[in-house]
Amino acid sequence: MTVIEIRPVPGIGEVEPGDDLVAMILDSVTADGWGIENRDIVVVTHKVISKQEGRIVAIPDEDAYRELVEDESVRIVRRRGNLVIAQTVHGFICANAAVDRSNIAAGLALLLPIDPDRSAHRLRTLIERRTGASIAVVITDTFGRPWRRGLVDVAIGISGLPSILDLRGTTDAHGNELNVTEVAIVDEIAAAADLVMGKADQIPVAVVRGLDLRGEGRATDLVRPPDEDLFR
Amino acid sequence: MTVIEIRPVPGIGEVEPGDDLVAMILDSVTADGWGIENRDIVVVTHKVISKQEGRIVAIPDEDAYRELVEDESVRIVRRRGNLVIAQTVHGFICANAAVDRSNIAAGLALLLPIDPDRSAHRLRTLIERRTGASIAVVITDTFGRPWRRGLVDVAIGISGLPSILDLRGTTDAHGNELNVTEVAIVDEIAAAADLVMGKADQIPVAVVRGLDLRGEGRATDLVRPPDEDLFR
Repeated sequence: MTVIEIRPVPGIGEVEPGDDLVAMILDSVTADGWGIENRDIVVVTHKVISKQEGRIVAIPDEDAYRELVEDESVRIVRRRGNLVIAQTVHGFICANAAVDRSNIAAGLALLLPIDPDRSAHRLRTLIERRTGASIAVVITDTFGRPWRRGLVDVAIGISGLPSILDLRGTTDAHGNELNVTEVAIVDEIAAAADLVMGKADQIPVAVVRGLDLRGEGRATDLVRPPDEDLFR
Repeated sequence: MTVIEIRPVPGIGEVEPGDDLVAMILDSVTADGWGIENRDIVVVTHKVISKQEGRIVAIPDEDAYRELVEDESVRIVRRRGNLVIAQTVHGFICANAAVDRSNIAAGLALLLPIDPDRSAHRLRTLIERRTGASIAVVITDTFGRPWRRGLVDVAIGISGLPSILDLRGTTDAHGNELNVTEVAIVDEIAAAADLVMGKADQIPVAVVRGLDLRGEGRATDLVRPPDEDLFR
């Protein structure tokens, strides 16, 4: 029975388009004496991925921001005052189509990576190449939820993990089939990592160690198909 | 910068109404050599709390189950086939009004504790009295989410923690006010703890160590008020 450890990776600093993010992460994690081991899960907020990929848009004024949110939305799910709940091209449903104005200079906004699963895969491959370790990557964003106050981090891009832990057909100690059958394990990893990240602390990376989980899912698998979605 | 550790507490075994759950938890956590320290967060699935509190109902057949779900619902939010999304008396919105048929003998169902925040407070007080440590408690259940496949653990009862980490007015390194202002930190703790619990493994308790967080919130604070809820 292993303990899971979640370690913040501070000191990465401001990321610019084209930066060697892998080197920045590995320098920070190594400086800390922790390094990267086999089966570590490197959890990264999308903000640094988006910056590294140059997903930055100028928004001179509030109107430009509103327009950008509409442009990034493939479907408006709800609208009230300035709040827009929208579906992004990836399928994610969140506030303002995930267009983000925090942790970036005033007058700029960050978009999600074009293909966060691919970004996760690229980051994983580069870290594996430089460390020799076999790892997984989760890229996160912070989403609100209907019915429950407050925001939580969720997975928007993954590599090296199953998207869903499928327990269908598993029985409990009483011989009942479990009624919890599909666990959104990568969202739980994202939430866990956020405990050490902090929103204002500029800790964009955490390492989760001790979770023995392998797979090749995609975060877009987590998008509920329209015919299963009772809340469109 | 501390590491957060999440440790499963196995070996608690089957809980019966009236059992000394505190002794069962402390025996298991002590047997493990880990013990309980100041600022530990003891995370417990509601199933063992509900059992200990005798929140067990006989359901001779499927009709009785359906009736029980209706009884436990104060509002039906959506219904499709056998799936009922309902609001419980506590305010939580979840499948089947949280009536649970897994991890209990066939023909029985588990209800949520009557007042999970109070259950959390009682458990915390008893653990603190027996260990001398100042701790926090989170009671969890497993909920689905609109739009995203899979289930995650959330907090349904808390003691010794803030319900929401309120970052309103905080600025980032660029001087922007954060647009992530309210973090549902106890839901993130619940999700993190689930990583070591497992659904079929009968590990109903985990200890989260390293998170320096104190408060006196209630999990019912997490229920979004009707006038803020766009998805009623």
